[in-house]
Amino acid sequence: MERPIAGDDSATTGSRVDVDTHELAALLEALSRYGRDADGALYRPVYSPAWCEAQRFLAQRMAAAGLAVHTDAAGNLFGRLDPAPILSTPTARSPLPSSRPPPTPHPQSAPSGVVLAGSHLDTVKHGGPLDGAYGVCAALLAVAGLRRAHGPPRRPLEVVAICEEEGSRFHANFWGSRAITGAIQPGEAESLHDADGTTMADAMRAAGLDAARLPEAERSDLACFLEAHVEQGPILEESGVPLGVVEAITGLQHLLVTVEGRQDHAGTTPMDRRHDALVGAAEMVLAIEAAAHQQGAPAVATVGRLECFPGATNIVPGRARFTIDVRHTNGATLARLAAQIRESCAATAARRGLAVHLQPLAAQPPVRMDAGLVALLERCARARGWPSRRMASGAGHDAQLLARRCPAVMLFVPSRGGRSHTPEEYSDPQHLARGATLLADALFALAYALPLVHS
Amino acid sequence: MERPIAGDDSATTGSRVDVDTHELAALLEALSRYGRDADGALYRPVYSPAWCEAQRFLAQRMAAAGLAVHTDAAGNLFGRLDPAPILSTPTARSPLPSSRPPPTPHPQSAPSGVVLAGSHLDTVKHGGPLDGAYGVCAALLAVAGLRRAHGPPRRPLEVVAICEEEGSRFHANFWGSRAITGAIQPGEAESLHDADGTTMADAMRAAGLDAARLPEAERSDLACFLEAHVEQGPILEESGVPLGVVEAITGLQHLLVTVEGRQDHAGTTPMDRRHDALVGAAEMVLAIEAAAHQQGAPAVATVGRLECFPGATNIVPGRARFTIDVRHTNGATLARLAAQIRESCAATAARRGLAVHLQPLAAQPPVRMDAGLVALLERCARARGWPSRRMASGAGHDAQLLARRCPAVMLFVPSRGGRSHTPEEYSDPQHLARGATLLADALFALAYALPLVHS
Repeated sequence: MERPIAGDDSATTGSRVDVDTHELAALLEALSRYGRDADGALYRPVYSPAWCEAQRFLAQRMAAAGLAVHTDAAGNLFGRLDPAPILSTPTARSPLPSSRPPPTPHPQSAPSGVVLAGSHLDTVKHGGPLDGAYGVCAALLAVAGLRRAHGPPRRPLEVVAICEEEGSRFHANFWGSRAITGAIQPGEAESLHDADGTTMADAMRAAGLDAARLPEAERSDLACFLEAHVEQGPILEESGVPLGVVEAITGLQHLLVTVEGRQDHAGTTPMDRRHDALVGAAEMVLAIEAAAHQQGAPAVATVGRLECFPGATNIVPGRARFTIDVRHTNGATLARLAAQIRESCAATAARRGLAVHLQPLAAQPPVRMDAGLVALLERCARARGWPSRRMASGAGHDAQLLARRCPAVMLFVPSRGGRSHTPEEYSDPQHLARGATLLADALFALAYALPLVHS
Repeated sequence: MERPIAGDDSATTGSRVDVDTHELAALLEALSRYGRDADGALYRPVYSPAWCEAQRFLAQRMAAAGLAVHTDAAGNLFGRLDPAPILSTPTARSPLPSSRPPPTPHPQSAPSGVVLAGSHLDTVKHGGPLDGAYGVCAALLAVAGLRRAHGPPRRPLEVVAICEEEGSRFHANFWGSRAITGAIQPGEAESLHDADGTTMADAMRAAGLDAARLPEAERSDLACFLEAHVEQGPILEESGVPLGVVEAITGLQHLLVTVEGRQDHAGTTPMDRRHDALVGAAEMVLAIEAAAHQQGAPAVATVGRLECFPGATNIVPGRARFTIDVRHTNGATLARLAAQIRESCAATAARRGLAVHLQPLAAQPPVRMDAGLVALLERCARARGWPSRRMASGAGHDAQLLARRCPAVMLFVPSRGGRSHTPEEYSDPQHLARGATLLADALFALAYALPLVHS
C-alpha cells in the first residue's frame, strides 16, 4: 500500500468553497416539493411518480452544475465531474439521464477510482425534507462549488442520489446501494411486492427501468464514499457540537415475536384462569426496554409494532404479535443483548402458560467507518475551526453498504429535537451549510489535493 | 301484593316433562347450519341472510310444535302457547311469522301477564353453536313438551328468539331486548352503521322490517323472563355442579385509553430520551391485570384491543390506544376498581412523560336477578335431585335488559373448558338437556301450577 487515504497535510488546506446557506436551503425546499402532501408531509417511495419527478429535477440541477448525468440500471442517479480530458475518460456524456453505465476509467488516468458523495432520494411515509435529501443536495452543491473554484478534479468526482434506502414501499432497505455493491440476488426484483401487490420489477418497469439489467449497476471503480446526513438523534444538539464524524454504524437485529395464549370471554373467565397473550406481550415489552436500559448507551431496543387478536373489547386476546428492533455498535454486545431479550421473552411465556415464537426478520452487523476518512473529516473541521465529535450512527445508512466496497464515512449535522422520519424534522440551515462545506473540503482533499489509495 | 312468584310448594312437583337429549342436540345442530362457514365457525349477524334463514327455520319449528308464531317490529321471533280459549285471547293466529304484534291478553283471563323464555338468535363473528341458540332451543322444547304433556297453560307462555344481543354487526348490544323494553331511541336505527356503512334501518329493511315501527315492539304484558344459557366460563365445570342459578349479572365499564408520547427514530433516540407510548401502554396493561387480581373474584379486567402508531418496526411509537373492560357484580366495587385503574394509568403516564386520555365507551350497572325466580329454579333442581349452585354471570345477557321490565332469571349449564365465543364452544348434551328440563319445570310452575304476580 502507498500512503493512507488523505494522510497528507495538504488535505487540511481547505477547498476555499463555502456552500451558501440560502442556496442549499432553496435547493432542499425545491426538492421537497416532490411527494409533499397538503399537510407538508413527504412520501417519495422508490419508483413512484413523485420519486421520478424528483429524480428528473435533480438530474437537471446536476446538468446545470456542469456534471455529466447518468442513471444506472437500478435508478441510482449520478452526476459526474471528470478530470481534465487528457487524464480521464474519452467518452462524451449526455447531460440528461440515461441508463447507460458510467464508462470505466481510462487505464492511463493517473489516480484510480471515483470519489463518490451523496445519499438517498426516497423518503419514509409521512417523512420530512432532510433525511436523504440533505446528503444529495450537500454533495451536489459541494461538487458544483469545487468545479467553479477549481475546475476539473484530478480524480473523478460523482454525486449520487441513491434510489432507495428506507424500505418504505418494498421491504427492501438499501436497494440502491445494494445494486451498486452487486448484492441484489437474481429474481429478487420479481419476488418483492409492495402493499398493492406490485412487484419491484414492475415498479422499475413503470419508471422506465429493466430489472434484468440490475447487475449492470454494480460498481467496481469506487475509491471512497462520503455521506452527509442529518443526525436523526439528539446527541449533537444536546452536546452543542455542530458536526458529527461517524466512526461506526450500529448493528441491528429485527425479530418478529408471536405470543400464543388462549382466547377467552372477558366477562366469564376468572383472572386466575387466563392465558392472556397481550398481557404476556406487555410484560415482554417492558423487559425489552429494561434490558436496553441496563446495557446502557448506545444500546437501544424498541417495540414499534404490536397487534393482538382477535382484537375485541370483550375478548381475552388469544394471540399477540410484535416486533423487536435491538441495536448496538458492538457486534458481540448486540448478540448478547438480543439473546438476553429472547430468554426474557421465553421466561415470561413459560411463567404465564403462553407459547412464544421468535422469528428473525433482519440482522445487520455493526459497520466501522474508514479510519483514514474519519481522520480526514476531523482535520478538515479543525482547519475551519469548527468543533466536531466522533459518534456512532444509531440508524442504518447507505454508507454501511458501500463500506463493503470502498472506504466510507459519514458526516452528521444536528437535528432539532433529535427528530426525523417525521414532517417536523428540521436542522438549522447554517448547520446544514457548514456540513456541506466540510464535505467540500474533504472532497477537495480526496479528488484535487492528493492521490487516493484504497486503505 | 299477593303471594311471591312461585312461592307455592306446588312449584316443586315437577313438570313431568323430560327434554330429550337427542332431540335437543338435533335441533341445535339443525340451527347451527345457518351461518356456518367451511371451517365450522358460525357468524349470524342480525338481519343478515343467514340470520333470516335461521329465523324462518325456527318459526317453522315453533309452528310445528303447536305455537302461534309472530315476529315483532324489531325482528324478535315469538312462539306463543295461549291458555284455553275461554280464558285467553279470542284472536286466531297464523302459524307463519308476521309483523303483527301479539294481541293484548283478554281482560277476563285470570292470571295476568306472559311467561317468556328464550335467548338470542344472533352470534358473534367466528362463534359457536350454543351461545344464544341453546336458550332458544331449550325454551322451544320445554314449551313443546309442556303442551304435549299438559295442553294449554293457565297463563300465556311465549318462546322468544331475540333478534340481536352480541353487537357483532352494529355496535348495538341488546338491540332485541332493548326493543322489547322500549329502550331504543328515535333515530337510533338510522345512526347505527355496520362495517360496510349499512345503517341498522337499511339492514332491517333488507330483512323485511320497518325501523319506524320499532316502538311497536315494546311489551308491557310480561310476567317474567327465564333465559337458559351456556355458562361461557369454567366455574360449573371446575366445581362439578351441572346447573348454575344466576343471582346477578355483572356490571361493566368499557373505556378507550389513548396514550400520547413522542414518535422517534428507533435507532437514533437514546433510551433515556424516549417518550414511548407503547411501553407506557404496556405498563398500564400490567397494572390493569394486577388491579383485578388484587380485588379478587368476581372482579375481571381485560385489555382486548391494543394498537400503536405509526406501527413500524424502526419507529418509537408516538401513540397507543387500547380498550379496558372491567367488571364486577357489586356496583360500588366496580366503580372503585375502575377509578383505581384510571388513577394507575394517569400515574404511569405522568412518570413516563406521556399524556393519557380515558374515554368511557359503555357502562352497565350490575343487575340482580329476581329472588323469587332464583328460589324457584333452586327448588325445581332440588325436586329433581340435581345439584345446583348460585353464581354470577360475568357476561352480559338479554335477561339484564328484561329485568328492567319484569322479574327475570338465568340458568347456566357447564361450558367445556369455560370456552365460548369460539367455534369450539361445547357443552355435554346431557347437561344441555338437563338445563332444558329444569326450565320446563320452572315454566310449568309459573304457567300451569300457580298464579303469578309481579314481585
